Amino acid sequence: MLRVMGDSNGLPPQLTAPHTKAKVSVARCADYWYVACTASELKNAPLPLTILGIPMVFFRTKSGVPGALLDRCPHRNVPISAGEVDGEALRCGYHGWEFSTKGSCLLIPGLKGESNTKGHAATAYPVVEKQGYIWVYTNPDVAPKIEPFHIPLLSDTNYNHVRQMVEAPGTLHATIENALDVPHTSFLHKGLFRGKGTRNDITVEIRRWNNRVEAKYIGEPRPQGIAAKIASPGGGEVEHYDRFFMPSVAQVEYKIGDDSHILTTAIGTPVSDFHTKLFTIISFRFGRMPGWMVRSVLEPIGKMIFKQDAVMLGKQTELIGKFGGEQFTSTEIDVLGPHIWRLMKAGERGEAGEMDEEPTLNIVEMNV
Amino acid sequence: MLRVMGDSNGLPPQLTAPHTKAKVSVARCADYWYVACTASELKNAPLPLTILGIPMVFFRTKSGVPGALLDRCPHRNVPISAGEVDGEALRCGYHGWEFSTKGSCLLIPGLKGESNTKGHAATAYPVVEKQGYIWVYTNPDVAPKIEPFHIPLLSDTNYNHVRQMVEAPGTLHATIENALDVPHTSFLHKGLFRGKGTRNDITVEIRRWNNRVEAKYIGEPRPQGIAAKIASPGGGEVEHYDRFFMPSVAQVEYKIGDDSHILTTAIGTPVSDFHTKLFTIISFRFGRMPGWMVRSVLEPIGKMIFKQDAVMLGKQTELIGKFGGEQFTSTEIDVLGPHIWRLMKAGERGEAGEMDEEPTLNIVEMNV
Amino acid sequence: MLRVMGDSNGLPPQLTAPHTKAKVSVARCADYWYVACTASELKNAPLPLTILGIPMVFFRTKSGVPGALLDRCPHRNVPISAGEVDGEALRCGYHGWEFSTKGSCLLIPGLKGESNTKGHAATAYPVVEKQGYIWVYTNPDVAPKIEPFHIPLLSDTNYNHVRQMVEAPGTLHATIENALDVPHTSFLHKGLFRGKGTRNDITVEIRRWNNRVEAKYIGEPRPQGIAAKIASPGGGEVEHYDRFFMPSVAQVEYKIGDDSHILTTAIGTPVSDFHTKLFTIISFRFGRMPGWMVRSVLEPIGKMIFKQDAVMLGKQTELIGKFGGEQFTSTEIDVLGPHIWRLMKAGERGEAGEMDEEPTLNIVEMNV
Repeated sequence: MLRVMGDSNGLPPQLTAPHTKAKVSVARCADYWYVACTASELKNAPLPLTILGIPMVFFRTKSGVPGALLDRCPHRNVPISAGEVDGEALRCGYHGWEFSTKGSCLLIPGLKGESNTKGHAATAYPVVEKQGYIWVYTNPDVAPKIEPFHIPLLSDTNYNHVRQMVEAPGTLHATIENALDVPHTSFLHKGLFRGKGTRNDITVEIRRWNNRVEAKYIGEPRPQGIAAKIASPGGGEVEHYDRFFMPSVAQVEYKIGDDSHILTTAIGTPVSDFHTKLFTIISFRFGRMPGWMVRSVLEPIGKMIFKQDAVMLGKQTELIGKFGGEQFTSTEIDVLGPHIWRLMKAGERGEAGEMDEEPTLNIVEMNV
Repeated sequence: MLRVMGDSNGLPPQLTAPHTKAKVSVARCADYWYVACTASELKNAPLPLTILGIPMVFFRTKSGVPGALLDRCPHRNVPISAGEVDGEALRCGYHGWEFSTKGSCLLIPGLKGESNTKGHAATAYPVVEKQGYIWVYTNPDVAPKIEPFHIPLLSDTNYNHVRQMVEAPGTLHATIENALDVPHTSFLHKGLFRGKGTRNDITVEIRRWNNRVEAKYIGEPRPQGIAAKIASPGGGEVEHYDRFFMPSVAQVEYKIGDDSHILTTAIGTPVSDFHTKLFTIISFRFGRMPGWMVRSVLEPIGKMIFKQDAVMLGKQTELIGKFGGEQFTSTEIDVLGPHIWRLMKAGERGEAGEMDEEPTLNIVEMNV
Repeated sequence: MLRVMGDSNGLPPQLTAPHTKAKVSVARCADYWYVACTASELKNAPLPLTILGIPMVFFRTKSGVPGALLDRCPHRNVPISAGEVDGEALRCGYHGWEFSTKGSCLLIPGLKGESNTKGHAATAYPVVEKQGYIWVYTNPDVAPKIEPFHIPLLSDTNYNHVRQMVEAPGTLHATIENALDVPHTSFLHKGLFRGKGTRNDITVEIRRWNNRVEAKYIGEPRPQGIAAKIASPGGGEVEHYDRFFMPSVAQVEYKIGDDSHILTTAIGTPVSDFHTKLFTIISFRFGRMPGWMVRSVLEPIGKMIFKQDAVMLGKQTELIGKFGGEQFTSTEIDVLGPHIWRLMKAGERGEAGEMDEEPTLNIVEMNV
């Protein structure tokens, strides 16, 4: 009944709690694009970043071209990020080997023979600079067949845009499910969202494609609480959509009446199995309310909410660690989580598809 | 000759020292009662405590009933101890699921269907409040056939009682053996107990039952040293018993003459394989000496002794970790350790029995 | 394509980067002598030191004899180094067992039977005090057939001698290769050695015996940079040898003209697989230049160079850990590293031989 788990810090196997399966909600979707950093963060100096557990070095050559290499010199396996950019090359700081953005070995100082051979090359990852972000494709061996996610509204000047980057000590799946989960807001973010007291019957329409899923909430009242008063100053009908796009985009859209519209796009980057970054863009307009005023309220509230979420995700990760795996129980009001999980696992196997087929429709009733 | 051990912090297997077997003196006796905390420590706020490697949350409902659940919400595996008590329920802080002291799921906010199903329940452990302690039975699946250990003398008003809780970085077995071991006192606690100089021949009678063992020391002189001067102010014949009761009670009893009597009961709680708590009750009377005076000397000396023991147990644990196991050598003057070990292993297999049979007698001569 | 590695701190297997083999350049040469500490560091108090992953306790008896035991009491596996020296014995601090420098158990306090039996003995390692160092042979089970390395020039009063001890977070092989590697000096120690600008064609003669290897550099110009100006104040022909002696000695010899001669002997001690100590002796004479003046410049520069090397070796070790192994690529200008590796692996298998045969000669051209 008691389970014993290996602990290899020297001590023999340790006790842990009963009943836990070894399964963990980690999907490693390698054949996809992820945001590495903002475009402005990438200067000439080499920038080490871990994505999907892979230590990478990002750099920008003198002519402005971004590159990403496995952050390990093929010679003596030191991090190339400890070196420096020289012209169009990144030079290792140990023996001075130089590499192009494509990974070719341009120079081995001291060697009289050929430097540029396959054996001397560094592993290079496809990189794209787009909409203010540096995107990287985490499979170095293939030519990407897809494009990075296109962020909507970004060029629409009727909207204000707030960009943030936050980090959570949780799996990509847990972090994305949390970002799109409605029932936890009354408890974890008590006071900022709906309280326990007033509850309404709501219908949720869930539409599933083979690389995205959408939940439409029908019957939601004008929201209560601080955040809500800002979101709907003048009242009106509420339209609310939560969406997930493969492999890691969580989108929440609120329309209140004709004038107020807020679209939050959170692009997840799996740093490692239990560490996720979210690059978040909030695009909004609130009738005649000036953008700076809305932003001055939205930004601190957004940070407070995310901090509460991050703390809870950290506790979850710690407990999964203690038990050596998860043992989740879902109910029908866990509206998107299980669908997201199925898409991620299909993506891991290379089976997530295109977007053009008819969606499957599910309907769930809830009282929140 | 050199042994290689897995180190999974990323680095490949590491060297360690030769000759060590993987065996460690850890017995996991699950079908037993352990002290979780004192009764006064358990208030309404949820109290997370690990026992036998199992993260548990203890709480007391509004009506005063104590409860213990596996500290992991069955929904999304966050610690329930991050929530709060509401009436007779403990509520999870993430999505608001509520549980009774028996583990039943009383509420899933938002869900229109049935909350109280077996799949939604939390794992609950039997709890008893007795003699000022909260006891927990570490097997959640069975009804306990035995009672928690009864602490003698506690209600005898002729005695003074001192309660302490101390923690040691050692296995339950090593901590209990240390508490009942005589030969180490001359070295580790030099000055407080017998010195190296004067030694006496002593006969030890060891009586073994199938769930306890007792050592009776015959020929012990009036003790020397500070502790001893307090224990036997007026001299007289010394009676000395060391006892172990399954699964984790160490008892040391001294009678000196007719008037002085001291009984130390240390109840061990295995927090994890290498972390043990001892809930200790010292009951004593010292002739006409006032209790507060004895106590004012006993308490600081007890703490000093235990601190020296804890440091040594920590060094032992660290070394067992380095070698990946133990390689103990015992002699006949390791009077109780091997017997305690056999009882613990029998208890782990569910084979430790009742107390009513005739004991087996062994006799050992020592010179201490 | 992605590799998954066990992480046993509780969390399930973690992602790591692609392509890495599990091989690491660690050779565990047990049947050899290593420097434990300087002779003056070893006083009466027990000194715990780890060598080749083995926790040892060094001590010096009252009569001055050095001893080394496995730092684990055979009784209850606490470190004997927590005890104290008493006359010719080392006494454990827990139950007072006493051991000789040969590991014999001289006393078990309280025991009426025989203490000095094989089962009660501690594991003892051969120890030699020589040329100001305490050497230990890391195989306790055999009589050493070889002598510790003899440090040349130490008794020659025409030379000044500087002793240092430095520590590197790298394998013995990586640390020794680094100490004897020429091409990295232009990059890692830029400014102190040759710069990137001026380069010369150099011929390297590599002579290999079955327990040592030597590189002779022909065509090296009078060196540039600060270190060089000190090494060759008056100019002259440069003679430069790099040498490795099994199992762990790196030697660099420079002769410039007739009057200047510098010999650096670095004796490596593998503390553990990724932690190496270097006991270094620099013996030099610089024509008419006073020793204290040379030393005042040599010492800080030597420390600066070694610090840069240690930082890079630490980055390499960290990365090998992240990838779970190495994937090195060598070229012909990695002059000594691969030969040292082969000797170390032969030594690990017990196949490194004597020094009296004819060497094998290889010639390499480089441009540094």
